[in-house]
Amino acid sequence: MFRNRMPRYEVLSQDAMATLDKGWRRLVSELGVEFMSQRALDLLGAAGQKIEGDKVFFDPDWILEQVAKAPREFDLQARNPAHDLHIGGDAMAFGAVYGPPFVREGQVRRDATMEDFRNFTKLAQSFPTLDSAGGVICEPNDAPLDSRHLDMTYALATLTDKPFMGNVVSGPNAIDTIELTSILLGGGQGREAGRARMEQTPALISLINCNSPLRWDDRMLDSLFEYAEANQAVVLTPFILMGAMSPVTIPAALVQQIAEALTGIALAQTIRPGCPVVFGSFLSNIDMQSGSPTFGTPESGMGLLCTGQIARHFGLPFRSGGTLTSSQVPDAQAGYEALMTLLPTFLAGTNWVMHSAGWLEGGLVAGYEKFIVDIELLQMMHAEFTPLEIDEASLAFGAHEEVGAGGHFLGAMHTMERFRTCFYRPLLSSSENYERWMRNGGNDAAARATKIYQDKLASYEQPPLDEAIREEMEEFVVRRRKELGD
Amino acid sequence: MFRNRMPRYEVLSQDAMATLDKGWRRLVSELGVEFMSQRALDLLGAAGQKIEGDKVFFDPDWILEQVAKAPREFDLQARNPAHDLHIGGDAMAFGAVYGPPFVREGQVRRDATMEDFRNFTKLAQSFPTLDSAGGVICEPNDAPLDSRHLDMTYALATLTDKPFMGNVVSGPNAIDTIELTSILLGGGQGREAGRARMEQTPALISLINCNSPLRWDDRMLDSLFEYAEANQAVVLTPFILMGAMSPVTIPAALVQQIAEALTGIALAQTIRPGCPVVFGSFLSNIDMQSGSPTFGTPESGMGLLCTGQIARHFGLPFRSGGTLTSSQVPDAQAGYEALMTLLPTFLAGTNWVMHSAGWLEGGLVAGYEKFIVDIELLQMMHAEFTPLEIDEASLAFGAHEEVGAGGHFLGAMHTMERFRTCFYRPLLSSSENYERWMRNGGNDAAARATKIYQDKLASYEQPPLDEAIREEMEEFVVRRRKELGD
Repeated sequence: MFRNRMPRYEVLSQDAMATLDKGWRRLVSELGVEFMSQRALDLLGAAGQKIEGDKVFFDPDWILEQVAKAPREFDLQARNPAHDLHIGGDAMAFGAVYGPPFVREGQVRRDATMEDFRNFTKLAQSFPTLDSAGGVICEPNDAPLDSRHLDMTYALATLTDKPFMGNVVSGPNAIDTIELTSILLGGGQGREAGRARMEQTPALISLINCNSPLRWDDRMLDSLFEYAEANQAVVLTPFILMGAMSPVTIPAALVQQIAEALTGIALAQTIRPGCPVVFGSFLSNIDMQSGSPTFGTPESGMGLLCTGQIARHFGLPFRSGGTLTSSQVPDAQAGYEALMTLLPTFLAGTNWVMHSAGWLEGGLVAGYEKFIVDIELLQMMHAEFTPLEIDEASLAFGAHEEVGAGGHFLGAMHTMERFRTCFYRPLLSSSENYERWMRNGGNDAAARATKIYQDKLASYEQPPLDEAIREEMEEFVVRRRKELGD
Repeated sequence: MFRNRMPRYEVLSQDAMATLDKGWRRLVSELGVEFMSQRALDLLGAAGQKIEGDKVFFDPDWILEQVAKAPREFDLQARNPAHDLHIGGDAMAFGAVYGPPFVREGQVRRDATMEDFRNFTKLAQSFPTLDSAGGVICEPNDAPLDSRHLDMTYALATLTDKPFMGNVVSGPNAIDTIELTSILLGGGQGREAGRARMEQTPALISLINCNSPLRWDDRMLDSLFEYAEANQAVVLTPFILMGAMSPVTIPAALVQQIAEALTGIALAQTIRPGCPVVFGSFLSNIDMQSGSPTFGTPESGMGLLCTGQIARHFGLPFRSGGTLTSSQVPDAQAGYEALMTLLPTFLAGTNWVMHSAGWLEGGLVAGYEKFIVDIELLQMMHAEFTPLEIDEASLAFGAHEEVGAGGHFLGAMHTMERFRTCFYRPLLSSSENYERWMRNGGNDAAARATKIYQDKLASYEQPPLDEAIREEMEEFVVRRRKELGD
């Protein structure tokens, strides 16, 4: 997996950080945070926090005590150990887009289906740059609603051998996800063996969103309880579109984000001290004229840079970034907005990056072509964020002696020895001269991406899986689907 | 103009810098640099450097003594004082694309004409984000070759009131450019008054390219002599596509770039001690399979970050970056490659940024639509690289009190007071929901850009200019054209 050994780009002064620190303390203690779950309220009350109705007024120092119980870094296991991940430190892990109800292929925009879900999962498996397919890579609208989580988890478990995200629609869904994953990780020794392995090292990482501002909803919290109790990683994420879910000033959004993420993390640590958590951030803004969400904005880039610094301040791994865009199609806007988010994602050293491939139209659409654009961006970032090795040999004095003033280095010995690997080789980008490009069809990046994803799907190879395990998972899915009445 | 008050992103360790330092010293002293100009050789020889044929073997410490004579920062005057520029420090100035022989509008790619030159100049004048139209914004192929520089300079001088770049095709062309500019700046008091003002504060900034590796050619050097003697700014720029004009390793390219830029600067300081110079960089790489130049690559981004740090090490303002791309059309690739260069341009705090708008197809094409894409990127970067103000008021505690948990901030007082200016407002990017976007034609960014540039040209207003000055410039052009036999 990728380790970001480049410097972090830090933009907050110590004074600024102190002001933000005062801000979140005031929010959690004076205004409080709502938890729409009696279990959560009982637990937080028993831990000494003041409860009024659904609202919890926190002692900020108590929050920091809980935060200190969380691991600074942790491992996440895959069924294929070659795909085990590390979350935190200089490690960066990347998952595909999460949540879109629609897909776009070429000129067609339509409802996403289970077939699309499987296709995107296969694509995520096929590109080494992606560490995970993510979770709800698109919403399979043709699968029965109540048992859809089973179909998705089964697909993620069988079509990839990388870690994946847990379903968070309800507590029972979370339990199903954990059960299926324990079968998968049992290694033929049964579900209990798998469960024990998961206790040791988490295999699932799940997204728990805050209903910003300052409210944690019941279904997400039910899922949080299940995953935290099972020692599975949770990403506590304020969902903030500035101007709608937070005030319009970035500092206010940052303070709110800290208050929300830390109260969620404090709850997780109260449920199970030491369970793996991630400081989550999903921070962008709305267009103040239309109210539409906007992505890849300067404000979101700035927010991302600050978030990294804040998470490190609290000693927590963090999630943010991706290849977000508001664009409806994989055009120039989609290209620059995606990088407007992804480059700061790397500058900030983000540990867990959802929405790294396929995000289109404000997250409503999973785009096949956009997926390929984003893989190219990820690959380029991996190359750019690899520190230079600067030593005597890298200066290639001998090549200059060989070539001389005004010459060219194409045939130099130094070049011959390195030409295959010296520069990043693009997946999608074209530098063909105009005549050759026209002869090859004059295709723009989107048109070329169509061919790339189709070829990739055609050459997809399913990772091997013990047939007994697959059968046990299938039986589980069939049984649970029946129980759920689908 | 834009001041970049964000931190610089520095990626070179002190050790790395020391290794690079040793490297350029060895190149200039052991291998030497060619100067294809007897004047230059005589001057450098008289200054004590060892000459063998066209080659100069430098004492690196002597070079540093010359470099130390250059101003760390300087002003550049415009005919409209509101557009005066500062070059160096935290100031960043942006000029349009420079040099393309072709243009693209929509689906049409064709030879650039004088009409295109005027159009792009008008566009550069119309967007405040651009500080200069640059110079050869496109090559006007329908204008007579020997007097084309007169037409271009006249257009730049009359259609904009911002600073512009000087012609560098030959020494006499440089003299013509200086003469025309002195008329322009005479303020009705005649050419001599203008010349005196230019002596005081440079008005022209001109690109002197090195014929990399390690050779300075005669025509560029002739121009350098004219501009430096007249105290006009020069940008000494190694033109390096790694793999062709330098070894394939980035450290080798950086060392070569230092050797070339500093020897050019040392010559300029020998011609006129204290004349304004810029450490230039144009650093990308070729595709090692096809030999094509590639832009917006990870290697060029890394090179750019290093270049900023290197130029500061020598106490010089520097030029680099832009919105470069290899893409043939303003598609997703053009969008992300442009930002792959432009974001590092800001991270490095580049002082003079050529090719900031309109660059397409490896610089062979000036793109009308791409021009608009790039203006959007520049505007976004200006917003993103503006430090946050973090104080008690920015935390908007009152807005939280007003809105409460789970509410929304759209109608909050805090929002109402700030909604017009709180977020960057895009020029080109769309966040329209799908239905509205379809109703509005379902246009991608390129199609929307067509309308934007056409509207901008339609609403262009020529900046006022004293008719006597314009006439004197016109007479100069007519007379010189006749003398040049066109």
